[in-house]
Amino acid sequence: MSDILFPRITLIGFGLIGSSLARVIRRDGLSGHIAVCARSQGTLDAAVRLELADSVTHSPEEAVKDADLVVICAPLGANKTIAKAMAPGLKKGCIVSDVGSVKQMVIDHVAPHLPDGVHLVPAHPVAGTEHSGPDAGFAELFDGHWCILTPKEDCDKAAVDRMAELWRRAGMTIEIMDARHHDQVLAITSHLPHMIAYTIVDTATGLESHLQQEVIKFSAGGFRDFTRIAASDPVMWRDICLANKDAILDMLDRFGEDLRALEDAIRNGDGDSLAETFARTREIRRDVIKAKQDQPENMKLVGKGE
Amino acid sequence: MSDILFPRITLIGFGLIGSSLARVIRRDGLSGHIAVCARSQGTLDAAVRLELADSVTHSPEEAVKDADLVVICAPLGANKTIAKAMAPGLKKGCIVSDVGSVKQMVIDHVAPHLPDGVHLVPAHPVAGTEHSGPDAGFAELFDGHWCILTPKEDCDKAAVDRMAELWRRAGMTIEIMDARHHDQVLAITSHLPHMIAYTIVDTATGLESHLQQEVIKFSAGGFRDFTRIAASDPVMWRDICLANKDAILDMLDRFGEDLRALEDAIRNGDGDSLAETFARTREIRRDVIKAKQDQPENMKLVGKGE
Repeated sequence: MSDILFPRITLIGFGLIGSSLARVIRRDGLSGHIAVCARSQGTLDAAVRLELADSVTHSPEEAVKDADLVVICAPLGANKTIAKAMAPGLKKGCIVSDVGSVKQMVIDHVAPHLPDGVHLVPAHPVAGTEHSGPDAGFAELFDGHWCILTPKEDCDKAAVDRMAELWRRAGMTIEIMDARHHDQVLAITSHLPHMIAYTIVDTATGLESHLQQEVIKFSAGGFRDFTRIAASDPVMWRDICLANKDAILDMLDRFGEDLRALEDAIRNGDGDSLAETFARTREIRRDVIKAKQDQPENMKLVGKGE
Repeated sequence: MSDILFPRITLIGFGLIGSSLARVIRRDGLSGHIAVCARSQGTLDAAVRLELADSVTHSPEEAVKDADLVVICAPLGANKTIAKAMAPGLKKGCIVSDVGSVKQMVIDHVAPHLPDGVHLVPAHPVAGTEHSGPDAGFAELFDGHWCILTPKEDCDKAAVDRMAELWRRAGMTIEIMDARHHDQVLAITSHLPHMIAYTIVDTATGLESHLQQEVIKFSAGGFRDFTRIAASDPVMWRDICLANKDAILDMLDRFGEDLRALEDAIRNGDGDSLAETFARTREIRRDVIKAKQDQPENMKLVGKGE
């Protein structure tokens, strides 16, 4: 019995996520042909060197010829350009998907350019590390994590099922939700934490130099955890900020209000209010631990970048 | 050859840190007698049950009788009361130390009450977990971490050396610094990260209920790391906020400014500025990794609570 899910798969963009997906496809023999498309010659060379590409090209239109599945694995900001460029090459029945951290914008930027009979199934494999590039990829990256699919309501059911199956083979648990809802959930669980981690690390870089050295030295007191999050890919995060602007600003606004309340409590020496806040947040940790125990398969990897 | 460093050691307060230190003392035979003092009967019972106490009492004055070393392991807010209560029982030549996360306040609250001939050597073993209480302790807690001593300049050199030796036996690397400087450094490396983690988790608890459940479910995207930090002991953190108020407010202020700048960049769609910020913070991660490689013994434990 063949394990082939898609006779021909095209990956457009080939960084951490794209090359990790290619490794899964190779490992499990899920496709007969992987076509890789990237702007940089170095990336295409890496795909060949790693033996993860059966064909390589700079042209999206050429790359998607005869493809049964096209997965855009490029930074979010490139979606519109890629969609326009590849559209003439797409065959009827082809599934177009992506791996972006923001979903409504993918629908807005990609859907209008797709010919009739092509199915758009946006996907967000919620996995990553703080490392970037094709050489940083590994097949186990997705194992035990969530993959969120955000197809429009009128999307072909069979196409959604096939995309779900691909990510299940990568070890992921599938969740289907509305694109806008996805963007709100990720704004609080991922985008806000990253914005805050970037900011606190930035605050530390602005310190007087006699303090700066010691910040590194004694970073184990909590700061170190933030530096890991703040080491994620700058271009990816720039694009996330621009693509999910409203939801991120909304969360930053709420956070800013809560932070000012905490500052006031410290300034006023309001010990009761501080202890109450610090006790309340402890409950959430218990819920997270509980959720982990319910879904142990979802928590194998600690490192996360997006 | 005996390994005894202090014939008689008194621990006042017996939570995670106190009970972990007692385990080290027992493991390495560093003292002939451990006297444990605590307000709660349950804590004293635990010390006896765990076979970590040779004598127990509610009275600080009684507990410190004949002690060669007294380590205050209680929340910072209790320092003054404990210092007053134990002072009449202290013998000449005794060393008084503590394990608090803020140091200048310990000097302010404890030093005035100590009789002549008693040496105050404040200490901050920078180690912890998000768990609290005597049963959460373990001897390896301190292994590979920093212990910062903040004696006053006129402090007895031999007393400082003996305290340093105790924490070295626990596996710690010793750093000696000025108390106020310590409080500034910890404000950025530990206190600010904790304030921010508490706040973001609090922001999540304030969300509409349909979002809240999903925050737990998809917490691996970055949020989860914050919930661990925000699960630290509420009373300890209340006391840290009150004890290091000025330095923490200063850091919160700087952080708030940087956060507003980031918000503006997102609001204005200023991609260049965003990418630049996100790239700059990446450098700090490299420094942290470099510092780790230089001091691998300092980075064995990941879990940190203070």
